[in-house]
Amino acid sequence: MSSPKSGPVHRGLWFEDYALDQVYVSAARTITEGDVAAFAAISGDFNPLHVDAVFARRTPYRQRIAHGMYLNAVASGLAAQMGIFDGTIVAFAELHARFVKPAFFGDTVHVRLRVIGVDENPSRRRGKVHFGTEMLNQDGDTIAEGDWMMLFLRRRPGSQEDES
Amino acid sequence: MSSPKSGPVHRGLWFEDYALDQVYVSAARTITEGDVAAFAAISGDFNPLHVDAVFARRTPYRQRIAHGMYLNAVASGLAAQMGIFDGTIVAFAELHARFVKPAFFGDTVHVRLRVIGVDENPSRRRGKVHFGTEMLNQDGDTIAEGDWMMLFLRRRPGSQEDES
Repeated sequence: MSSPKSGPVHRGLWFEDYALDQVYVSAARTITEGDVAAFAAISGDFNPLHVDAVFARRTPYRQRIAHGMYLNAVASGLAAQMGIFDGTIVAFAELHARFVKPAFFGDTVHVRLRVIGVDENPSRRRGKVHFGTEMLNQDGDTIAEGDWMMLFLRRRPGSQEDES
Repeated sequence: MSSPKSGPVHRGLWFEDYALDQVYVSAARTITEGDVAAFAAISGDFNPLHVDAVFARRTPYRQRIAHGMYLNAVASGLAAQMGIFDGTIVAFAELHARFVKPAFFGDTVHVRLRVIGVDENPSRRRGKVHFGTEMLNQDGDTIAEGDWMMLFLRRRPGSQEDES
């Protein structure tokens, strides 16, 4: 642990650490009724598809489903928990997500990130990494897929950080 | 209010109600420190950019910023609160978001949706609506932009719902 005076702790991967086709697989997480209710409260999205069990019984799925935006949140959290972004990510610049299948309460999901592009731009301090993203459930079905564009710090030549 | 036996309440807009270039402007919402902490807890994304004030002081913005995924969540909540999706949306099929500027604690944001496409497919029961999305802060700056593809129920010819 570093004291505040010693500066930020960079535990994540630097731009130069990301190689094309490298795959990162997250831990898994079970989507619960409580999570979805909490997400409704925080987002303000109380659409009955997500919060009204009686309404949902009359829909094709016959049950409530998780918000797509909640699946995005879970994907970002599972990715963050891998530690690869800690202290080295500068910005989440852009994302695309396609929701292929619904996630139900009790489903257990994980995410796979694949590096599909690396770009030294926009500056000498930062580089862009383009990830293909996939969220899978316990049956191995893809429930969401897309891509994320993120900016990472580059190693400073000659710094200690360059030698890790 | 309808009892469960009378079926779902459809208060939102049907597919046929969405017209090209129609704009929907949401209420505004202030992004707070508490919101961002709660989003970290729910998503599991505790990246120091969002939750570590000491770390954030050493970044270019010199303060914590809201998660991009939280801005997506807020956008979906503000949109939901307009009521236009209530009971008529079938699925949030796809989204794209580009984060243009950061959102800081205390910023007040709202969203603008513009109908940029309507497609009667994929079925006689449903149609696709394509929205261009923009999130603006209190200074009128665009902080995020993108697009959403959503599926809506179509009116059933001859039903009461057809006459509203």
